Amino acid sequence: VGKNLDNIIDHAKKKSALGHASSMLNWDSSVNMPKGGAVVRNETLSQLSVMQHQMRVLKEIPHWIEGARQELPLENFSDEKRLWWKKNLKLMEKSYKQSTLFTDEFVQRESQCALDCEVKWRTLRAENNWHDFAPYLEKVVAITRESAQIRAKAFNLSPYNALLDQFEQDLREEDFIGIFNELKQKLPDMIQIVVAKQKSRKMPSLEGNYPILKQKELGLELMKMVGFDFDHGRLDVSLHPFCGGVSRDIRMTTRYNEKDFSDSLMGVLHETGHAKYEQNLPTEWGNFPIGNAPGMIVHESQSLFMEMQIARSAEFVQLIAPIIKKHLDFPLGMQELQTAYKKVEPGFIRVDADELTYPMHVILRYELEKAMIMGDLQVKDLPGAWNEKMQNYLGISTLGNDRNGCMQDIHWPSGGFGYFPCYTLGAIMAAQLKVGLERAVPQMNKQILAGDFTQVDQWLDTNIWSRGSFYNYQELLTHATGKKLGLDDYFTHLKTRYF
Amino acid sequence: VGKNLDNIIDHAKKKSALGHASSMLNWDSSVNMPKGGAVVRNETLSQLSVMQHQMRVLKEIPHWIEGARQELPLENFSDEKRLWWKKNLKLMEKSYKQSTLFTDEFVQRESQCALDCEVKWRTLRAENNWHDFAPYLEKVVAITRESAQIRAKAFNLSPYNALLDQFEQDLREEDFIGIFNELKQKLPDMIQIVVAKQKSRKMPSLEGNYPILKQKELGLELMKMVGFDFDHGRLDVSLHPFCGGVSRDIRMTTRYNEKDFSDSLMGVLHETGHAKYEQNLPTEWGNFPIGNAPGMIVHESQSLFMEMQIARSAEFVQLIAPIIKKHLDFPLGMQELQTAYKKVEPGFIRVDADELTYPMHVILRYELEKAMIMGDLQVKDLPGAWNEKMQNYLGISTLGNDRNGCMQDIHWPSGGFGYFPCYTLGAIMAAQLKVGLERAVPQMNKQILAGDFTQVDQWLDTNIWSRGSFYNYQELLTHATGKKLGLDDYFTHLKTRYF
Repeated sequence: VGKNLDNIIDHAKKKSALGHASSMLNWDSSVNMPKGGAVVRNETLSQLSVMQHQMRVLKEIPHWIEGARQELPLENFSDEKRLWWKKNLKLMEKSYKQSTLFTDEFVQRESQCALDCEVKWRTLRAENNWHDFAPYLEKVVAITRESAQIRAKAFNLSPYNALLDQFEQDLREEDFIGIFNELKQKLPDMIQIVVAKQKSRKMPSLEGNYPILKQKELGLELMKMVGFDFDHGRLDVSLHPFCGGVSRDIRMTTRYNEKDFSDSLMGVLHETGHAKYEQNLPTEWGNFPIGNAPGMIVHESQSLFMEMQIARSAEFVQLIAPIIKKHLDFPLGMQELQTAYKKVEPGFIRVDADELTYPMHVILRYELEKAMIMGDLQVKDLPGAWNEKMQNYLGISTLGNDRNGCMQDIHWPSGGFGYFPCYTLGAIMAAQLKVGLERAVPQMNKQILAGDFTQVDQWLDTNIWSRGSFYNYQELLTHATGKKLGLDDYFTHLKTRYF
Repeated sequence: VGKNLDNIIDHAKKKSALGHASSMLNWDSSVNMPKGGAVVRNETLSQLSVMQHQMRVLKEIPHWIEGARQELPLENFSDEKRLWWKKNLKLMEKSYKQSTLFTDEFVQRESQCALDCEVKWRTLRAENNWHDFAPYLEKVVAITRESAQIRAKAFNLSPYNALLDQFEQDLREEDFIGIFNELKQKLPDMIQIVVAKQKSRKMPSLEGNYPILKQKELGLELMKMVGFDFDHGRLDVSLHPFCGGVSRDIRMTTRYNEKDFSDSLMGVLHETGHAKYEQNLPTEWGNFPIGNAPGMIVHESQSLFMEMQIARSAEFVQLIAPIIKKHLDFPLGMQELQTAYKKVEPGFIRVDADELTYPMHVILRYELEKAMIMGDLQVKDLPGAWNEKMQNYLGISTLGNDRNGCMQDIHWPSGGFGYFPCYTLGAIMAAQLKVGLERAVPQMNKQILAGDFTQVDQWLDTNIWSRGSFYNYQELLTHATGKKLGLDDYFTHLKTRYF
C-alpha cells in the first residue's frame, strides 16, 4: 500500500493498542480490582485517554487522508476493498473534525464538569437531594449547549441533531419525530388495556432460591447455545452489567439475584446480543471506524433482537424451560414463565421498565433533554416538568421523589445528551429486523425451537454484523428489510405479544 | 517545582500509565484471557512496549535531567527529598544511557532473536530436541555477546558485569566470585552428608487429597496473616506462578496440585514476599527508578526471606500446622511437616531444587553463561559441559536428557544472561537479614510463633522496603546488618537447619 495508507494503518494500530488497554483496564476496574488500586488505576486511565486524544487530533491525519485518496486507485485492491477504504476515509475525516472542534481547554473543562456532576450524583441521588445536585447539572447542561452549538455550526446541523449524530451516524430528529409522536399517541392506551387485562388474572411469581453458581452455569449454557464465542470472550460479575473488552476478546458481565434468576438471565441474553455483534464485526477493519458499529441504535437493535425478539419468544421459552429446570429448582411451567415475562406495569425506573412502558420513559427524556439543550427548559424546572410528563404518559407522580425521577439516570450527569432515543429506536429496529428475517428464513421459529441459530446468525451477519459502518442505520435497514425505520412491524410485534 | 522537574514528573506519569497497562494486560493474559484473544493482545502489548521504548529514549530527557539538577537547590524541598531527587536523577541518567545505547534496528533484532528462540524452546524442550534448538540459542548468544560488548564499552565494565548490572544495580562479579567458590567447595560435601543422614530415616510423605478451593482458603488465610495487603492486591491462578501488577495493585498467582498442597503453599508464601516488598515501596516515588527495587537480588532476598527464613522455620511450621488441619484433611503432625520441608535430594530441575542443592544449579549456570558470553564455550558444546558440571556438583547425569538439562530454563532462550546469580545471592542476603533482624528484635521468634509480624515488617520496611533504590544491595545490607554480603550467616542457617 502507499505511504499515506501506511501511516494511517500504523497510527490506527497504536491508537487501538491504547483503546484495548483502556477497555481492559475499565473491565478490570469493575470486575477484579482491589479497592486500594483505584487511585493509580484512575490516573492511568486518564493518562491513556489523554494519549488517545492526542492521537485523534494529530495534525498529519487530514494530510494522510488526502494523500490516501490519491493512492487508492493505484492499489491492487479489489473494487469492494477500495469502496470500503473510501467510506472509511470519509468516516475518519468526520471523526477527525469532531475531535479537533474544541480547544484542549474546552475538552478539559467539559470532562471536568461531567466528572464533578457524576461524582455528586452518586451520593446525592441516594439522598434524594435535588437541591444540591441541580447546580452541578446546570453546569453540565450549559457546557453541553455550548458544545452542541459548536458541533452544529461545524456540521451544519441543529444543535440537538449534532448531539444525536455523536451516538448514531447520520441520526436526525426529523427521522424519528413522527415515530415518537405515534408512540405517544398509541402506547398509553395500549398500556392501560394490557394492565387492566393482566389485573384480571394472577401473574405467576418467579421468586425462589437460586444459588449463584447454578445461575452462572445456566447463563453460560444459554450463552453458548445462542452463539456467544467463548474463544473470544468470557462472562464475569460486576455491580453494573456491561459488555466490554474488544471485538476479539469480549468481557461481558452480569450480577445475580438469589431470589430471582430471570433478572440476570435476561440481562445475560441482552448483553450476549451486544457481544455477538462485536465478536462478528469485520476483524480486518477493527482498528478503523468502518470496522465498528455505526452507533447505539444498531447496537441496541442487536441486544434487543436477542432479548425481546428471541429470548422472550414463545419458542425460546419453550426451548429453555427444561434447561432452567435442569439447573434451578424452579417449579413453574413454560406457560407461566412466558406469562411472567409479559408483565406490564408502569413504574418509576427506566432500566426496570417492561417492553411496553419503556418507550414512554425514553420519549419523556428526549423531550426534556431537547428542551434543555434548546434553552426552552431551565434545569431548575426539571423536576416539575418530569413529574408532569410521568403523570401524562404513565399516570404516576414523581413529586418529591427525584431519586426515582429526574435523578435516576447516569446519562445527563455524565454529559450524555442525545443518547436516550437510541434505546427505543433500537427496539423498533429489532422488531423490523425480525420480520425481515422471518421473510428470508421462514423456518426460523422452528429452528429456534430446536436451539438452532445458524440461519438466524447467518442473516444477521450478512445484513448487519459484517457491514461494520459501511452503511448507516437507515441504509442497513433498507438493505435488510426493504424499508427505512418505521413502526408497522413494531406495533404488530407488541400487539401479538401483549393482546 | 521547576520547569524541568515538571517535565520529568509529567513524562514519568505517562510512562507509568503505559507500564501499568502492560503489567495488567500481562497478568490478564495469564489469568483471564480466552485463547482467541491472544493475537490482538500480543499486538497491543508489542505496541505498548514500542511506545514505552520511545518514551525512554526521548531526546529531551538528558536536558531535563541537567536542568533539574540546576533547579534542585532552589526548591523548598527537605534535605532528604533533595538527596532522593539527586540519586533519582543519577538513576534516570543511567537508565537513559542504557536505553539509548542501541539502534532501533538492533533492539528489534535482539528481541526478535529472543522471541524466535523462546517460541522454539516451548515445543523443542518438550521434545528433548537439542539439535533443532541449538541454532536458535546460538543466535541469541551471538547477539547477547554483541550487546554485552556495547554495554561494557559504554559503562567501562567487563561484558559479563555489564549484563549483571542490568538485573541488579552495581552488581559485580568480583563481589560474589569468592562467595561462589566457597559454596562450590563446601556445599557438595554438605549435600552428601545430609542425603546420607536422611536415608537412614523415613521421610514423611505429604501426598493426599486436597481440594483446590480449600487450598485457596488456606493460602489466603496465611497471606493475610503474614501481612499481604488485600486492599492493594489479589491472588489468582495461572500456569506459571508470578507476582505482577503494580505496587498499589499487586496481582499474585499460584497453581494448585490436588495431591500435594505444600507446592502451592510455599509458592504462595514465596510470592507474598515479593508482593509485600512491592506493596511497601515508597508510593510517592513509584513512577521513578528510585521508587522501585534496585534489582533481583534484593527482590529475591524478600521472597526467600519469607519462604526460607520465615515459612520453613520451626516457629512458623508450629504456628500454621493447626491452620492447615483446619482447612485440609492432613494427617501428619508439626514435626513431620517440618521434616518433609527439609528433604534434600539432588535433582535435575532448578525450580524443584531444595535449599541446599539450589546454589549448585545456579553456580553451574553462572559458569556456563559466563563462558558463552566470553566466547570460551560454544553453544554446540553446552550439553556436554552441562552434563560434566552436573556430575561434579550433584552427581547426576544429563546425557541425552537435555530437556531436563541445559534446555530446562526459559532464561537463556529469552535472552536473560546474568540473571541466575541473583537467585543464590538473594538467598544469602535473606539469611544475613534474618540475623540482623534477630539482633534488632530478639523476641522475633516468639512473635512469629504468635503470628505477630509487626516488628519483623517494621524492620524490613525501615531497612529495605522504604528505601527503594536509594541504596544498592550492598549499601542496604551494610546499613541493615553492618556488613556486606557474605556467607557466615548463610552457612550458620544451613547448618542449623540441616545438621
